[in-house]
Amino acid sequence: LDEQAMEAVQARLDSLTKPQGSLGVLETIAKQLGGIQGQPWPEVEKKAILVMAGDHGVVAEGVSAFPQEVTPQMFYNFLSGGAGINVLARHANADVICTDVGMAFPLDPPELMVHRIMNGTHNMALGPAMSRKEALLSLLTGAKIARQAIDSGVNVLATGEVGIGNTTPSAAIISLITGLPPQEVTGRGTGLDDAGLIRKQEVIARSIEINQPDPQDGMDVLSKIGGLEIGALAGAILQAAFSRVPILLDGVISTAAALIATRLCPTARFFLIPSHSSVEIGHITALKELDLKPIMHLDFRLGEGTGAAIGFHLLDASIRILNEMATFESAGVSSKN
Amino acid sequence: LDEQAMEAVQARLDSLTKPQGSLGVLETIAKQLGGIQGQPWPEVEKKAILVMAGDHGVVAEGVSAFPQEVTPQMFYNFLSGGAGINVLARHANADVICTDVGMAFPLDPPELMVHRIMNGTHNMALGPAMSRKEALLSLLTGAKIARQAIDSGVNVLATGEVGIGNTTPSAAIISLITGLPPQEVTGRGTGLDDAGLIRKQEVIARSIEINQPDPQDGMDVLSKIGGLEIGALAGAILQAAFSRVPILLDGVISTAAALIATRLCPTARFFLIPSHSSVEIGHITALKELDLKPIMHLDFRLGEGTGAAIGFHLLDASIRILNEMATFESAGVSSKN
Repeated sequence: LDEQAMEAVQARLDSLTKPQGSLGVLETIAKQLGGIQGQPWPEVEKKAILVMAGDHGVVAEGVSAFPQEVTPQMFYNFLSGGAGINVLARHANADVICTDVGMAFPLDPPELMVHRIMNGTHNMALGPAMSRKEALLSLLTGAKIARQAIDSGVNVLATGEVGIGNTTPSAAIISLITGLPPQEVTGRGTGLDDAGLIRKQEVIARSIEINQPDPQDGMDVLSKIGGLEIGALAGAILQAAFSRVPILLDGVISTAAALIATRLCPTARFFLIPSHSSVEIGHITALKELDLKPIMHLDFRLGEGTGAAIGFHLLDASIRILNEMATFESAGVSSKN
Repeated sequence: LDEQAMEAVQARLDSLTKPQGSLGVLETIAKQLGGIQGQPWPEVEKKAILVMAGDHGVVAEGVSAFPQEVTPQMFYNFLSGGAGINVLARHANADVICTDVGMAFPLDPPELMVHRIMNGTHNMALGPAMSRKEALLSLLTGAKIARQAIDSGVNVLATGEVGIGNTTPSAAIISLITGLPPQEVTGRGTGLDDAGLIRKQEVIARSIEINQPDPQDGMDVLSKIGGLEIGALAGAILQAAFSRVPILLDGVISTAAALIATRLCPTARFFLIPSHSSVEIGHITALKELDLKPIMHLDFRLGEGTGAAIGFHLLDASIRILNEMATFESAGVSSKN
């Protein structure tokens, strides 16, 4: 990040009519935005949430409370503007860009499938979820979607996703990369009961056992126990970092994608902005591994990018603080004793 | 709260295209708003932050990093729109209503002092901060300001304040009402060093010792170890509850005021909405005493209502979710297996 820009932002913040540092995370964000954009007056011009959709062969093991038909149904719901993410994105004045990178069922019209890499992943409990080539394609597709958004003027991104069963590969990735056992990072997803949760933990342990992914090799992890939308989000994060665009992380799936992305390129971490911590227990663990602290505790477990959409308000607020607050000098306020 | 309205809100929430309860605090807030307003389609029409300003005789003991001149200087800053709260209120589309209920220095023009009860409290380390009558006046004044806002169409309120030294009486109130020793609920305010913090804790212990307020008697606590802006906020909370208007709590001073208000009228608690947890260690303790859980961890320690202003976005979001999301039926999405 641009140290000089960050110092300039800090100096500005310290001149404003408040005790130094007293606006906490808004100041941290303003400084990070300055460092990312390389300018003392960072700006949030156009916001977009990249919602990647994919399906998971592992649902055959009974790891989700909802049927797989829901993935395309929700995708159509996104397109018609009726989902939670649409509402919260409108509220935050952000675009929703949703892309099918690998759902299982056909879409109508077929043009909606132009970015689909395969019809859902294979069942990772029986073997690799994808080939290395398919995993690479998911990364490149995500990067392409992010680049198109950035080229169209978007200068703040956020991650979102839909995919029945996708907390399972996410927990598998988090377990493998943090070295914690599946029980400690696996949650109930959209609403599993106790028996379902135990089954899910067993499936994750089995998937890791059978595939033996190398935790040091992000591509190996992604292809063997990942997902297409997770790969696409990891690619979007890498592109954001490459283009010096901040990217807000949503929940546990987005954060698993961030683990993959930072395994491939550790400096991508500096372009990530955390938003909330979801109900999924692996989420906090994954954020900690990234050295990120969640700002909000919304008790969300919806995904789609909903937590990140709420986070946009914090970015807007931090920019407004920087631009609109009076200084001690301009307001004639005495500083510290 | 209106149980029937809450059930109607819950039924609506459960019909929307998301797993039940998966929008966490947004659903909780929507339901609470329905219960408060007594209608299945709650609305946020006009928002206002009530910023109460007061001074504290106890600053003579050296409990603040800033001089007392800063209280009126910040008050003028509020009036001219340059303070943090002005920026964040504009961002949340909320009004800022600031009232001098007891600053120490004269204001110009004198009409600004029309609600001033006295020129700052007495030094509570030497005796009662106020008489019982002055404390009652602070309550009534706060209630009047809240009522005027409500009469003008405001249907969501938030608390804010300014007053050099006011984390000291707040910590004293929290210590007394929770029964925890001052060390466990006293923070650094706007920026005390270690020696200053120890002095502040001693001053609080001494103030409680010398005044012997009755923790069961909210008026006794308020008058002996409280503050004029704290009393005004407590009065505003009581008026909000009486008028069935939700009121967002800001930081440690607002939450101390809520402790006073709920000591006077326990059911006022149901009209409170938490926002953030500040850096002040007493804040979390006070929220717990009120059975409230902070939603955001912004690391703020500015006061003014800044955390509550950020919280307004969550209220708006919860209403939009209720009004704008598609239902399983309308979107043709399958529900749980």
